[in-house]
Amino acid sequence: MASSPDYAGHFSDRNIPFGIASSFVHSNPQATTRIANSVIFLTDLASSGFFENVKDLPGGIFAESTLNSFAALPQTMHTAVRAAISDAFRQKGLDAFPTDSIEDISAVTMHLPVHVSDFADFSCSLEHVKNAGRIIINNGAPPPAFFNFPIAYQGRASSVVVSGTPIERPMGQFRDGPNIKYGPSQKMDYEMEFAAIVGTPLAMKQRLHATDADRHIFGFVVLNDWSARDIQGFEMMPLGPCNGKNSGTSISPWVVTVDALKPYAIKAPFVEEGKDVVVPASLTDASRTTYDIQMQVDIQSGGSSTVIGTANVSSLYWSTRQMLAHIVSAGAALRTGDILATGTVSEAGEGSQGCLLETTEGGKQPVTLKDGTKRSFLADGDIVRMTAVAGSAESGVGWGDCTGELVSARPY
Amino acid sequence: MASSPDYAGHFSDRNIPFGIASSFVHSNPQATTRIANSVIFLTDLASSGFFENVKDLPGGIFAESTLNSFAALPQTMHTAVRAAISDAFRQKGLDAFPTDSIEDISAVTMHLPVHVSDFADFSCSLEHVKNAGRIIINNGAPPPAFFNFPIAYQGRASSVVVSGTPIERPMGQFRDGPNIKYGPSQKMDYEMEFAAIVGTPLAMKQRLHATDADRHIFGFVVLNDWSARDIQGFEMMPLGPCNGKNSGTSISPWVVTVDALKPYAIKAPFVEEGKDVVVPASLTDASRTTYDIQMQVDIQSGGSSTVIGTANVSSLYWSTRQMLAHIVSAGAALRTGDILATGTVSEAGEGSQGCLLETTEGGKQPVTLKDGTKRSFLADGDIVRMTAVAGSAESGVGWGDCTGELVSARPY
Repeated sequence: MASSPDYAGHFSDRNIPFGIASSFVHSNPQATTRIANSVIFLTDLASSGFFENVKDLPGGIFAESTLNSFAALPQTMHTAVRAAISDAFRQKGLDAFPTDSIEDISAVTMHLPVHVSDFADFSCSLEHVKNAGRIIINNGAPPPAFFNFPIAYQGRASSVVVSGTPIERPMGQFRDGPNIKYGPSQKMDYEMEFAAIVGTPLAMKQRLHATDADRHIFGFVVLNDWSARDIQGFEMMPLGPCNGKNSGTSISPWVVTVDALKPYAIKAPFVEEGKDVVVPASLTDASRTTYDIQMQVDIQSGGSSTVIGTANVSSLYWSTRQMLAHIVSAGAALRTGDILATGTVSEAGEGSQGCLLETTEGGKQPVTLKDGTKRSFLADGDIVRMTAVAGSAESGVGWGDCTGELVSARPY
Repeated sequence: MASSPDYAGHFSDRNIPFGIASSFVHSNPQATTRIANSVIFLTDLASSGFFENVKDLPGGIFAESTLNSFAALPQTMHTAVRAAISDAFRQKGLDAFPTDSIEDISAVTMHLPVHVSDFADFSCSLEHVKNAGRIIINNGAPPPAFFNFPIAYQGRASSVVVSGTPIERPMGQFRDGPNIKYGPSQKMDYEMEFAAIVGTPLAMKQRLHATDADRHIFGFVVLNDWSARDIQGFEMMPLGPCNGKNSGTSISPWVVTVDALKPYAIKAPFVEEGKDVVVPASLTDASRTTYDIQMQVDIQSGGSSTVIGTANVSSLYWSTRQMLAHIVSAGAALRTGDILATGTVSEAGEGSQGCLLETTEGGKQPVTLKDGTKRSFLADGDIVRMTAVAGSAESGVGWGDCTGELVSARPY
């Protein structure tokens, strides 16, 4: 895991992700990419003729305040735009781009990269569901359908915010011993997740095999599914989580494309459990294709940062392509800007869990931070930071971070 | 319940709902209203100067292909537009409008009235949850949080379709005795629901009391939350329904405004159960304001139509204003075009249930249709029709209908 605080190493010329930024100079939020710590405004490139060899690129597309129109273009277009940028950079460095198009990352404000259409959150980690089952209902059995398909719930799309947005501790009702209490959540948690963003849409009532699903993915983000465990615990029988997950869902500002991740596609390990379950053809993926992406979460408190968990996306039982295939299998559509998240990424072993519920055994085994304080769940003022890199720390392909500060509940 | 097949009686000059229509003459989907069987295209009215006394009405707003921009305007604007139309009609009848602006309902195609942002589906009926609990888990107890707040789940916004859209029987995995089967759902059902559509938005992290929530409602629609009970039953532990509800959610094309329903606001009956549960101030509504709206569902099969259930919105334990107050109480936003649905509207007594699960006791007591066939759940080719009127059948304020034909699952 690259440790440079500015993540310059995540953004080599092999990454070329997309994001929406604004600045004093570029006052309207618009499409950008990033190389090291330089944010490059793509409208400036387009108007200088930089993309003249990218056939059929719609004019003005990078001036829009979300990436949706660009994401909806064929993946070949994303590839061509990325290639034009990386090829030029390899030849001339930053001199390849108009001076006005470049600003330092410290000078820009990042915005939500897409208008989020639907947000579906899955539960792909076998380790996570076993841990949660053991902790919550004293039963480590996975949910009944876990091995049959990637189970999911729909989240609230309007609650998705960009990294850096403060998250307010929510008010709600929850169990307090034998009573029901109303007040600020006492069990605020994060969930470290990986998420696909849909590019090419798919109409309702279509068929999609997992092995064809990558063509509908624009790219991927790191996602923090903030969770008020106590509110969630009281509300979710039988309709699932709702307000416990609605106070905010943070995503990284940079969308790393499917293309950039191709070198990091690997075969997921064989899992003994569930091997006898027959799944529909649409979910079958003999290649077991996933990505070697190392994720990490830390809590910043009292001026220091403590790594709480690291886990690899390749440990998930279900892959992002299987998530897409499942969600459309009953007739639903995919729209550009849809987010499909993996659920908490957790592996076996100490320090390999993606949420505090698991790390602290539901609060019973608090973690000690470097500043000497303990956490069963999050405290007001905690900054939760998630990072991810593909392959090794030196790959040059990463997401930077997805952060958020938990701020106190305001009085009603 | 008005029985005229064209529902002309639902659309008196006291209704003046809004919808999106197109036709051979008006080829672009655009904003309309309806009086009896006449659909009136509002852009034609606007360009003739009809609304010149409606101050600050943005130009071109009725030419848009959804009602979102109009819905986002202050409610006083909706009131002023409706008043201009109804006043003119009362004076001169249809002669009050330019000839070209009027088309017969039979000549137009209705479209989805709004771009749906988020879709939250609640569970507001005490009768429904008792019935469902008894049938599904042999336990008539309401969900743990039922009396504390209106429990809800997020639905898939892209699955919301306009009345008339065929619904395809979904494929999925479900329990078949001790085995898990993959194939077309064997337990397709409807759910008769009432739903609010958000007009004025509310940012994240705001506070909203139920008694102030009506100001965020643009209007209401009739909604059919098609449900594959077997797919839903297998998937929903612990994250709630997902694919079982994703094959389509139908809404009526006409949005009846908050304003038009004011004469039908009534006080909900006092309910003994749950009376000792203390709810937060934001959910408290001493006025117990709800609406006297009679809903009805029938199944059309073999050339005849059989009424299966009738129930009144006022029978719900939680009101639409309480639904809005709850969904934002943990920090979530409201966006224009959000749909918040009540869940199945059911009352006690035979013929008063809003879904087949309840009507047939989970399939154990099939209903006999007028064509002599029996239904435990829906059959391919069934057309499910839901209607609603405010007050009595003669009120002149209704929704027309929300229909959909269940078509067979296509082979993969």
